[in-house]
Amino acid sequence: MAKKYVYRFEEGHAGMKNLLGGKGANLAEMTNIGLPVPPGFIITTEACKEFYAQGRRFPDGLMDEIREHIRSLEQKLDKVFGDPANPLLVSVRSGAPVSMPGMMDTVLNLGLNDETVEALAHATDDARFALDCYRRFINMFGDVVMQVEHYHFESILQIQKDRRGVPHDHQLTADDWREVISRYKALIEVEAGRSFPQDPMEQLTMAVQAVFNSWYNDRAIVYRKINRIPDDLGTAVNIQTMVFGNMGDDSGSGVAFTRNPSTGERRIYGEYLTNAQGEDVVAGIRTPKPIEELAHHLPDVYRQFRDICELLDRHYRNMQDIEFTIERGRLFILQTRNGKRTAQAAIRIAVDMVNEGLISREEAVLRVEPEQLDHLLHRRIDPEAELEVIATGLPASPGSAAGIAVFDADTAEKLGQDGKKVILVRSETTPDDIHGIVAAQGILTSRGGMTSHAAVVARGMGKPCVCGCEAVRINARERLFTVNGITVRDGDLISVDGSTGRVILGEAPMLDPELSDEFRQLLEWADEIRTLGVRANADTPEDAAKAREFGAEGIGLCRTEHMFMGADRLPLVQEMILAETEETRREALEKLLPLQEGDFYEILKAMEGLPVTIRLLDPPLHEFLPNTEELATEIAQLQLTEPDSPQLREKEELLRKVRALSEFNPMLGHRGCRLGITHPEVYTMQARAVFNATARLVGEGRRVIPEVEIPLVIDAGEFLFLKNMIDQVAAEVQTATGVEFAYSVGTMIELPRAALLAGEIAQEAEFFSFGTNDLTQTTLGFSRDDAEGKFLHRYLEQKILTDNPFAVLDRKGVGRLIKMCIREGRAVRPDLLVGICGEHGGEPNSIEFCHQVGMDYVSCSPYRVPIARLAAAQARVINDGLAKKDYGTK
Amino acid sequence: MAKKYVYRFEEGHAGMKNLLGGKGANLAEMTNIGLPVPPGFIITTEACKEFYAQGRRFPDGLMDEIREHIRSLEQKLDKVFGDPANPLLVSVRSGAPVSMPGMMDTVLNLGLNDETVEALAHATDDARFALDCYRRFINMFGDVVMQVEHYHFESILQIQKDRRGVPHDHQLTADDWREVISRYKALIEVEAGRSFPQDPMEQLTMAVQAVFNSWYNDRAIVYRKINRIPDDLGTAVNIQTMVFGNMGDDSGSGVAFTRNPSTGERRIYGEYLTNAQGEDVVAGIRTPKPIEELAHHLPDVYRQFRDICELLDRHYRNMQDIEFTIERGRLFILQTRNGKRTAQAAIRIAVDMVNEGLISREEAVLRVEPEQLDHLLHRRIDPEAELEVIATGLPASPGSAAGIAVFDADTAEKLGQDGKKVILVRSETTPDDIHGIVAAQGILTSRGGMTSHAAVVARGMGKPCVCGCEAVRINARERLFTVNGITVRDGDLISVDGSTGRVILGEAPMLDPELSDEFRQLLEWADEIRTLGVRANADTPEDAAKAREFGAEGIGLCRTEHMFMGADRLPLVQEMILAETEETRREALEKLLPLQEGDFYEILKAMEGLPVTIRLLDPPLHEFLPNTEELATEIAQLQLTEPDSPQLREKEELLRKVRALSEFNPMLGHRGCRLGITHPEVYTMQARAVFNATARLVGEGRRVIPEVEIPLVIDAGEFLFLKNMIDQVAAEVQTATGVEFAYSVGTMIELPRAALLAGEIAQEAEFFSFGTNDLTQTTLGFSRDDAEGKFLHRYLEQKILTDNPFAVLDRKGVGRLIKMCIREGRAVRPDLLVGICGEHGGEPNSIEFCHQVGMDYVSCSPYRVPIARLAAAQARVINDGLAKKDYGTK
Repeated sequence: MAKKYVYRFEEGHAGMKNLLGGKGANLAEMTNIGLPVPPGFIITTEACKEFYAQGRRFPDGLMDEIREHIRSLEQKLDKVFGDPANPLLVSVRSGAPVSMPGMMDTVLNLGLNDETVEALAHATDDARFALDCYRRFINMFGDVVMQVEHYHFESILQIQKDRRGVPHDHQLTADDWREVISRYKALIEVEAGRSFPQDPMEQLTMAVQAVFNSWYNDRAIVYRKINRIPDDLGTAVNIQTMVFGNMGDDSGSGVAFTRNPSTGERRIYGEYLTNAQGEDVVAGIRTPKPIEELAHHLPDVYRQFRDICELLDRHYRNMQDIEFTIERGRLFILQTRNGKRTAQAAIRIAVDMVNEGLISREEAVLRVEPEQLDHLLHRRIDPEAELEVIATGLPASPGSAAGIAVFDADTAEKLGQDGKKVILVRSETTPDDIHGIVAAQGILTSRGGMTSHAAVVARGMGKPCVCGCEAVRINARERLFTVNGITVRDGDLISVDGSTGRVILGEAPMLDPELSDEFRQLLEWADEIRTLGVRANADTPEDAAKAREFGAEGIGLCRTEHMFMGADRLPLVQEMILAETEETRREALEKLLPLQEGDFYEILKAMEGLPVTIRLLDPPLHEFLPNTEELATEIAQLQLTEPDSPQLREKEELLRKVRALSEFNPMLGHRGCRLGITHPEVYTMQARAVFNATARLVGEGRRVIPEVEIPLVIDAGEFLFLKNMIDQVAAEVQTATGVEFAYSVGTMIELPRAALLAGEIAQEAEFFSFGTNDLTQTTLGFSRDDAEGKFLHRYLEQKILTDNPFAVLDRKGVGRLIKMCIREGRAVRPDLLVGICGEHGGEPNSIEFCHQVGMDYVSCSPYRVPIARLAAAQARVINDGLAKKDYGTK
Repeated sequence: MAKKYVYRFEEGHAGMKNLLGGKGANLAEMTNIGLPVPPGFIITTEACKEFYAQGRRFPDGLMDEIREHIRSLEQKLDKVFGDPANPLLVSVRSGAPVSMPGMMDTVLNLGLNDETVEALAHATDDARFALDCYRRFINMFGDVVMQVEHYHFESILQIQKDRRGVPHDHQLTADDWREVISRYKALIEVEAGRSFPQDPMEQLTMAVQAVFNSWYNDRAIVYRKINRIPDDLGTAVNIQTMVFGNMGDDSGSGVAFTRNPSTGERRIYGEYLTNAQGEDVVAGIRTPKPIEELAHHLPDVYRQFRDICELLDRHYRNMQDIEFTIERGRLFILQTRNGKRTAQAAIRIAVDMVNEGLISREEAVLRVEPEQLDHLLHRRIDPEAELEVIATGLPASPGSAAGIAVFDADTAEKLGQDGKKVILVRSETTPDDIHGIVAAQGILTSRGGMTSHAAVVARGMGKPCVCGCEAVRINARERLFTVNGITVRDGDLISVDGSTGRVILGEAPMLDPELSDEFRQLLEWADEIRTLGVRANADTPEDAAKAREFGAEGIGLCRTEHMFMGADRLPLVQEMILAETEETRREALEKLLPLQEGDFYEILKAMEGLPVTIRLLDPPLHEFLPNTEELATEIAQLQLTEPDSPQLREKEELLRKVRALSEFNPMLGHRGCRLGITHPEVYTMQARAVFNATARLVGEGRRVIPEVEIPLVIDAGEFLFLKNMIDQVAAEVQTATGVEFAYSVGTMIELPRAALLAGEIAQEAEFFSFGTNDLTQTTLGFSRDDAEGKFLHRYLEQKILTDNPFAVLDRKGVGRLIKMCIREGRAVRPDLLVGICGEHGGEPNSIEFCHQVGMDYVSCSPYRVPIARLAAAQARVINDGLAKKDYGTK
């Protein structure tokens, strides 16, 4: 028996991708579940391989099989290939086992020739349409099959339009198309050295050959190389009957979703046009009608369609996006795929489908992109609104806000107290601006990156912030900024979208966040599934409470320095830093102690029963001091105006001190535990504040779990030196208060050397928390603030890096260090607690990695806790093979 | 038979350290090669172990053995323990198998009591001396053996001096000592609860017990723990006869070297004092006589001593430092050890000893500390000179220079042209100061670390430089600096020592470098032995020539940016940087091209036949621009004085541009190949300059080996992107010139991610060169400039780090990355060329590491090439076990 090279759609199914190609297998699947798919057949990948094995010749018997299948199509549709009255027209498409988009163009309307085009004109009662189809077919066939370069066809078309004095294709008439067709044919004669084939069977043979040949065209070879697709897969060829929705009032085309893609409601949602092709529905020239009207117009077709929607929704167990055409009262389904949906709809559909018994809870948690949740957790600009976007900066803190532009913190505070909504606009913010940030609805800065002061503080407070918007030129003195010729003055209304970085003129309409029951349900399921813990980064009692509300199981990072920036603290902190002797420094620290103790008391209390990782002071001290450039300017002015004033001497002295503290590379400078080594009194004060607070709470009968964290460690000896110091303070506090309490001491892993020496450090440290912001900076040698503004975009454009490594954890470099570190740390301390507190802790792809490498928890900003819970569950489902992501949302 | 616990010196040898302890084994060795060592015996470590095994009791038979050996000593010396006429006196010393300095004090003159002290007084004819010995013995015995705290003895002594109204011990008389002795004895009676033992045998028993007990005193336990010495080794006890050089004119003491420790000349060198103890020789109260005079004074003793020197020199195969005493015409050798020597002597002795057949060439190369060579390669301050050191900064570039202090580059240049010697004093230098640096003899800065501009440029030029000397407060306007109350003005003479960091008032006397024949000989042997290549870091044809002269086998790092800093280049470079469009940038680059081409032509020519690694532009662009703080000051002044001047607008515009280029962490910013990615035209120009120069030289028939190096790579894709660009330029140049030439393209490994992705990067890169300065900065998260000024000293003081990681390669962290990188790089490219070009490439300990991990070469500054050659040879000798370092120079 001869080998079978051709399959009818009815003979295949979705599992036959290797033989039938992806597209063919899907068409077969749809046909076999009973959908009225325009009939057709598939030439297998085996045929393609045989074609190449025989030196680009069709294998024996292939043409016979094709002819037989064409005959069977003719019978089924009562149309005949080349028939001048009722011609069969088909599309010819390639279809490899793996998707290779754009590798080869589709050939539509194959079967048209000088005769059958008239039949099409008659059937659709639209000669212009039929001729347009024909000229497109000749163009495509000439280009793809007969290798006549596309620009020749373009220029003929252009000449025709010029001649008519019209700019657009649709302004050409049927007669114009006739002229164009005649020139196209002449062109092919000249360029290809033979005439355009009029015989549909010849057209088909040539088209199939062209598809086979395209498997080894340059584009395809390169594409496979880049995507590591084996060369020997071969491509299938799909031949499918053309159907037309413009054959009269009993014809039409439409698109519909099996459920509402906006709300998730379980009801067909869609629209259609009578006597129209599919393109017309989306083109927007005629206004489509709601799908429900089909019930009145063609009730049988509507019923059939409704049943099909139900069938597809159940079969694919996902909301479907369906394209259909009705040709003379007969319904054809052209395509079905998982439909795009809003976050809200995604959640509702997933939860509903579990309740309907269609999918498991594990599948449900895979149905929502964790990032989508972000939209639901913040106020956002109405996506329907028309906006005047005047600039785009870095999306530094999600959510949106509108208010009047204000150029200094004091005014922001004053107006805020008066109940005005303000957006604080600054070139960059400093700790001196905190009261303004607190009072503002949102922040806009022209300098600084995702880790700049403004960004960090705004994220901590959950306020929208756009940073590093360099197009905005701020003139603080004149209280205005200009951007692309537009001037925004003090008091003008603007809006900022911290999720996208957009800056908008005027007050953009906003949507409030809504947390539905389904949202809570889905996250409950996620919690049941996930094995990875989720904590929050929180520095204040308010944040801690918010985090707990969002489901955080502890605090993974409490940054004590943010407490240093409060208006009541900063002067004391500056006093401490500028102290010339250890004694005066101790005095300043004495004053800070009760304030820090109060902070820790409230935070530990808010997280009663849950662990709280408290990081000792981390940033370089000069971050708390004024800027040298500003000081130099003030001094230069004073030198000219008041050369003998004591103010000048004071400023000069201050500048000298600030300069002495300033650093070439603060990121790699005198910060983190290096401060604890050189100024033990600072860490001692902080440890005392933690333990005093702990002792008070334990004394009140509360269960609190403080974890003291030493930042920026590079060596076991360094860690031990500081741990001993902390243990001693704990012992002193226990003796002084008579209260026994438990605590642990661990470290951040945020420098490569710490990761490389994990085995030694874990002998002393009880927990590791990966500070992946810093670890990424040092492993890649990328200063985030500099990279994002200056060169990272080129790396992404050139695809040297696939993702921003500060957003998505760099698995190859940083990830390798993390894996080594965990392995070697746990080798010496099997119960080592391991977490992550860098911003990657809230990013789904990175969370998957954290799950894979066996971390105990991720920690992220309170507003990302729901995202992390969902992502952690997805990581578990996928890695343990509990469900497949095949039916995702894209 | 009872176990043997006591050995006479004659019964042991150097190989018995475990049983006899280090000191005992050495005394035995000296005795056995026939030296007249004061006789004695050793109680073994076995006895100590047994002492502990039996609950701190002497093992059976030990006391009998000791008594027997004392008897034998008495016979040999014709003295008797406790004899009032001719008493035997001994010393008792601990001696563990491993040196544990300071663990227990020595007890001298044991055997003295109220009677024997009179005998000693008589024999030495010096009652005061005898009583002084006695009171010291009582003090030591009371403290060490009887646990009476030392301060009690001190206060008795102080009271006696106060009573006499004299400040110094030596001003007390014999009668004073008698009083002190009587009070000491009373003190012991009260504090120890028993009287000071008068019986020498009892003294000895108690002293031996005390030594055993000291093995487990707190100090010793901690010392062993820190140094990982096992607790169960135990200590031996050495009992040796005391001899006295102050027993008349036929007695004396002296020290001598078997060769001249200053020049290495093969001739005994030493001095002695008649009728004196060893302390007197070094005390400097009497002037010792040259050893040769002994030949007249005591000819037999001199001959015997000369023969012993010869014997020891040959036996230990190293120059010996010998202490001797003559007691009544009888010579005793008290100690011999390897003598300390100057670099010059070390070299001469090593070479002579090879020629004398005493040691192998392999041993010879181990005899000179590589770092010592540094002194011979630079002018240095006469170590004998008395100096007024007014401050100490960082030793940024070795060598010394004197000149008049000058506070700006223009004056330095002018005075330099007039033939004046100047020291350029600046808070920090910038590219604008280059002409001043060129003209100066040396540089002094008050800010900046070992990698600051001044340091890097000075090292490159081989000029002495002291950096970051923060005690120096410079007032550039007044043209002076103050330091610790001293003011140095423009024109005052100062000296700088860039090898130690010292700043000296006035003109310090200098010694010129001298390269002896022996020096060359030793380095030739080193070259024969070593397998590790040695290249130099050189940026100019002059440096390249110097490097070649010092034996460099190529250039491992040619920094193209230093070429950008020349006075003729800087304006063009600034024009290029500030260009607003790619076009104007290209114009500036066009002007730079011929200049760079000329540089490369000369350097490649100077290194004809040897490889030259040319690194493309590395530093951030703003390093070539003025400082923002200075600009801000100028602008503030102009705003008040000339608010409408075009100058002000210009400066403001410049500030805006400089600010836009300025970075938060330049070390991690827009530099290295990131410039090549964002500004391909810069790298293209540089590649063209390299290949144009190559083509010209090849056209002239010269063999040149350019290796183009891409800095700061983190990814294989990034490397490939740039390599393709470079290959294309090479092809263009080959086509344009018609000259074929070979070249390679490789990368620096200076960021952790590059090391972690070595396997991928090596697929594309032909060589790796470790930039360990940057790799150390990122692996440890230490900005060198900030760390060295602000916190590194604390890490060294606290012994958290044993070495400055920028000086000595951090093997645990950075080294681990390097090992991984080489292993994985060579796995995919077995012939991958691997070198190091960070400053560690010139540091001996780091060079040993480079040898161990299989690098092909190290590269260092030209002046360190000889050091590296020697260190590389030593690494080979030690790692391949070709000779032992036992007989080192210390």
